[in-house]
Order: sequence, then C-alpha cells, then structure tokens
Amino acid sequence: MSLPDAAAPPAREAGAQLLAEIHEQPRALRALLEHEAEYARAAETARARGASMVRMVGHGSSDNAASYGVYAFGLLPRWTALRDSITLTVHYASELDMSTSTVIGLSQSGRTPDVIAYVERARRRGAFTIALTNDPASDLAAAAETVLPLAAGAEDAIAATKTYVNQVAALALLAGHAAGSGRRIAAQLRATADELEGLIPPLERRIQEMALPFAYVGRMFVVGRGAEFATAREIALKLLETCRIAAEPLTATDLSHGPVAALDPLFPVWAIASEDDTLPTALEAATRAREAGATLVASGTAAGAVTGADYVLAVPAPPFPLLSPLLSVVPGQLFAWAVARAKGLDPDRPARLTKVTLAQ
Amino acid sequence: MSLPDAAAPPAREAGAQLLAEIHEQPRALRALLEHEAEYARAAETARARGASMVRMVGHGSSDNAASYGVYAFGLLPRWTALRDSITLTVHYASELDMSTSTVIGLSQSGRTPDVIAYVERARRRGAFTIALTNDPASDLAAAAETVLPLAAGAEDAIAATKTYVNQVAALALLAGHAAGSGRRIAAQLRATADELEGLIPPLERRIQEMALPFAYVGRMFVVGRGAEFATAREIALKLLETCRIAAEPLTATDLSHGPVAALDPLFPVWAIASEDDTLPTALEAATRAREAGATLVASGTAAGAVTGADYVLAVPAPPFPLLSPLLSVVPGQLFAWAVARAKGLDPDRPARLTKVTLAQ
Repeated sequence: MSLPDAAAPPAREAGAQLLAEIHEQPRALRALLEHEAEYARAAETARARGASMVRMVGHGSSDNAASYGVYAFGLLPRWTALRDSITLTVHYASELDMSTSTVIGLSQSGRTPDVIAYVERARRRGAFTIALTNDPASDLAAAAETVLPLAAGAEDAIAATKTYVNQVAALALLAGHAAGSGRRIAAQLRATADELEGLIPPLERRIQEMALPFAYVGRMFVVGRGAEFATAREIALKLLETCRIAAEPLTATDLSHGPVAALDPLFPVWAIASEDDTLPTALEAATRAREAGATLVASGTAAGAVTGADYVLAVPAPPFPLLSPLLSVVPGQLFAWAVARAKGLDPDRPARLTKVTLAQ
Repeated sequence: MSLPDAAAPPAREAGAQLLAEIHEQPRALRALLEHEAEYARAAETARARGASMVRMVGHGSSDNAASYGVYAFGLLPRWTALRDSITLTVHYASELDMSTSTVIGLSQSGRTPDVIAYVERARRRGAFTIALTNDPASDLAAAAETVLPLAAGAEDAIAATKTYVNQVAALALLAGHAAGSGRRIAAQLRATADELEGLIPPLERRIQEMALPFAYVGRMFVVGRGAEFATAREIALKLLETCRIAAEPLTATDLSHGPVAALDPLFPVWAIASEDDTLPTALEAATRAREAGATLVASGTAAGAVTGADYVLAVPAPPFPLLSPLLSVVPGQLFAWAVARAKGLDPDRPARLTKVTLAQ
C-alpha cells in the first residue's frame, strides 16, 4: 500500500473553484452592500461637481459590466454613460474635455495597465475619477481620486463570476445614489441577493443535465438587448474562455442585420428575454433564430415567453427590472462550467490565460 | 436547337454584383466629395450651436462606421463621440439631456425603423440631428433637421461595401470641417480614392488564389484597434453574412482578456496592423494568436510588420493615418467574396437577409 506524497497538492475536481465562486455570489453581493455609504459619498461628489457624463473603462468582464452601466446611469439619474475608448486617450493622446466627466476605471485586480494609464490622464484633465476594484491597495486605486471597493473577496478562478456580479451591482448602487434613490436600490439589491441564493442550486442540477449535447458545439450567438446586453456579452465571454466556443454577443436587432445568415441547426442561439420594454424585440429575435433552424436556449426573467425554445432557463424577477442582469447571468455561468466539463476541459484553467492580464 | 426563353433573367455569376460594387468604391468616394459644401455647412451649424457631443446610431455596417466616428471626432475636433444606445431613448424612453448633442442617424436606405424613431425623439429633445443616408428622400431624411447624402449610387448586393466606405469618409469629412481642417481632409480623401483604385485589381487576383483553404473554416477572430476597430467589425460582419463564418471582432487587448483561450489551428485570426500609435498593441496581439497556433492573416498599412503571418495583405498608406480604414477594409471585402464562392455560396444572396432590414 502506497501513501500519498505529502508534497502533492490536494486532489481538485476540474471546475470546483469556478463552481464555488458562482455559489459565493449572494454572499459577495451582501458584502458589497456594507460599503453603501462610500457609494453614496462618491455619487454626491459627482453631483456636486456637475460631473454627469460617465466614462467607464475596463476590459473583458469589466467592460461587459460597463455595458450595464450605460443603462443604470441612463435610467436612474438620466446621465449619459459610455464605455470610453481607452485608445483615444492613452495611445492617440487626444485631449478631450473631461471637466464634466466622472470616470470609472473597472478592474478586479486593479492592475490592468491601460486602465490605470487612462485614469491617470483623465484625472489630470479634470475628471472626477473612481477606481472600482477588488483591491483597494492596487495601482488603479492609487491613480484615482476615490476608491469604491468591490468587496467580492478573493477570486481565484480565471473566469470572473462574483466580481462581475458585484461590478454590475456597484454600478446600479452608484447610479441609484446619483439619482437620489440609492437607499431603495440598496434594499432591492439585498432582496436580489436572497433570490440569487435560492436560484443557484436548482439551476446547477438542471444545467448539468442539459450540457452534454453542447459538447459538440463550436459556435453560438448570445442575444440580449438593453440592460441584458451586458449579460449577453458576459455569457459569450464565459463560453469563449472556458468552453472554447466561438460565442458572439449580439443585440436583438443586430441579429437581423447580417448574422442571422450564418445560422443552422449546429449553430445554437442563447436568447435572454427579460420583462422590460425590450421584450418584444428579444422575442422577435428568438423567432428569427428558430426559423433559421437554430437550437434555441431561452433564459432571463421572461424565458417562458419564448415560444419553441429547446431549453428554458428562467430566473425569478427581481424587485426592479433593471436588476435582472444580476440573476440572468447565472444560467450562463453554470452552463459554461458544465459544458467545459462535458468537453473534458478544466473550467478553472482556460488555456493561455492568467488571472491578471497585463496586455497593453 | 432551343432558343433561350425570352422571359429568363440574364445569366448572373454568383457574387458578380458584390464584386462590381467593391470596384465602384473609388468612384463612389469621389461622388461623395462633390457634396463637401453640405458637410461644411452641417459642421458649422454644430459648432455654432455648441453641439459638440456626437451621438451616432445605426445597425450593422452603419454601426461599424460609427465605431470609426468615435476616432474621427475624437482626433480632429476633439469632440466626444459615441455609438449611442437606441434602446435607452426609443424603448426605455429615458429623457437624456441632448441640448449640446449632434445626432447622426446612419442608414443606407434611410428606412431603419428604430434609427428613425431615435432621431425623431432626439430632435424633439433639442439635438442637432443629421441623417446620413444614401436616400435623401427617405423617412430618416425627413425626420432629421439636416440631410447629408452618402452619394454612393444604388447598392444592390445585400452586403454593404461602397456605402460603408462612404459612411467612413463622410464621418471623416464632417469631423474635419468641425475641426476647421475640412479642406485638407477632402483633398486627402481624394488622394485616397486614387489609391483605392490602384489597390483593388491586384488584391482581387491575390485573394482569389488564397481563398480555397478557408472554405473549411467555421470561426475566426478579426482583430483591430483604434480607428481600425471599425474595420475589424466590418470585416467580421462580411464574413458572417456572406461566408457563414462565426467571425468575431476584437480589439487587440480584448483578445488577451479571454478569447485567446479558444484559439487553435482551425480558428484563424485576421489581424489589422496599421501605422499609428496602436501598432505595438496590434503586433502583440498577432504574436499571441500565432503562439496559440492560429493561422494568421495580416492586413492593414503595416501588415508587413507582423512577423510569422501566413498571409500578408498589405494596403498602401493614405496621406493621413486616420484614413487607413478606407483602404484596409478592401482585403476583407474581397476575402469574404472569394471565400463565399469557394464554399459554393452566392455572396450576392446571403440566406434570410434582405437589403433593407425592418427588424425593431
């Protein structure tokens, strides 16, 4: 009988880390809400300075969360928010007027080089700069005037999950305070954390059962509109990095402007249908995908309204429709985890990626 | 001996229409420049009104051209320009302050429903509204305060080519006039039309020779940064709609933040490398793609600087680096045309698409 080598690492099941962090999301969200006062203060500073144009910069999941920020700021304080071009400021050194801008640099690690460079330049040009990061001791935090903690706890899996959810929640909270309705949004976020907690275990079981046939899939579209476009982008990124599926996010309308031509039964479409004013466009896109013969996965709070879907992964409605993306991303996270395993890949260790990306 | 049926349409070679319109691009560009005075007037109006925030809306190729507009306005008059959310204004009915905005509605046909609806609402909210369209008698033209003609002539192939190039040129011309350097930009555009003319015939021959192996490809990334991100988006869309390749556009930095994990030798990367301050990031991305084993196609004005590329499709440098996208899109257009034919598809007739998309 041989004894295990004392120096060997403990046995680790492929994807255990990612799955654990998906389950930690309700707790991470509650931890973020403990910092509400800091978010209220930052919003007050932005208002006091008239810095009502919001420029968000980030890469990967952080940039996906910024897509959500466009709607959080557009719908709550009615401020124009944009995912700004880092290139224009950092590489082309164009000197835009930033005197009425709030800049939000999004980076889990706080170490993304061009995000730091952008924030430094924006601050010199008079913007009110905020670092939204999981590491308040990072270089990004040092570069910005104000630090807002993500408070998601250490994230070790390479694919972001709980830090993405906390970025989305953080933008909702900041936008809520900018609109003078921060207390209400905070309470709704707390209720959403409870819904998240109830949602994950049954979804995990259901998605494990349906993952196997997708092991043969090489390409997908993920369709979402409005606030759920962020979710579409984030689910597509999870599929790319953990499952090596060429998954492209599209708005409901984009699908009809060209990409629908590529569909066939081996090119599934994931459609996010949530209860809001964009629902008719999401349903129309799902119908087009189905007519093109695509296998159709429906998710979101109104997934049940998608007729003819092959798989339905509904999530409960949050207390406020703008918060749906916090719930509707979860089926995609679990699906990416399960399909990667069905393909024999380790979702915790995507090829060629490291947790902190230092590419310029 | 049987005579041809008098009612039969003339024999048409698959892709002849698309190819003819690719060849018409230099002429279309010169036709646009005949309208320079109208562009100068629109820019003067925007300046006089202090409408220095540019909100662009469009779908498909029009939205890709808008990606270019971010850089044209950011670099020439140093105005903040964004691809605005149509959803926020049209579906969510959020009432953003548009009093200092210039709105540009981009639509070849002038019939895109939600672009028209956006322009109508923006105009009521005080924006200076411009319709940039190939049809000055369209509903979009009627909805806007000012019409700027694309003047590309009738475009019959479903995949846009010459109207895309003219949209890019139109945004450069308008931005140039907004910056007080419109005459210079117009002269440089005229010189670029001449370069375009010399470029197309040799590229057509070269790309036909290389297309065959790509008939087996199902997925690709198209990488570009800065002004060339518009080109990456447009080439990816051509590949999707005419070749049914799941082609996703990425910025050079995006590639490293996840998607690089999906690459393998059957997942080629098209890298656009042009002479400007983003070139080092484009070269770094190309190196990462090559190290991942991807087949690598290099294009752009600095294609020759990409080491280890399997195919090099260089284009000449225009008189001003910002105008490179007018030239660097052409290899992609011809490649989509040639690969579609190699796959036995008709590039003039993508499945399920019509020339005018009326999806909401």
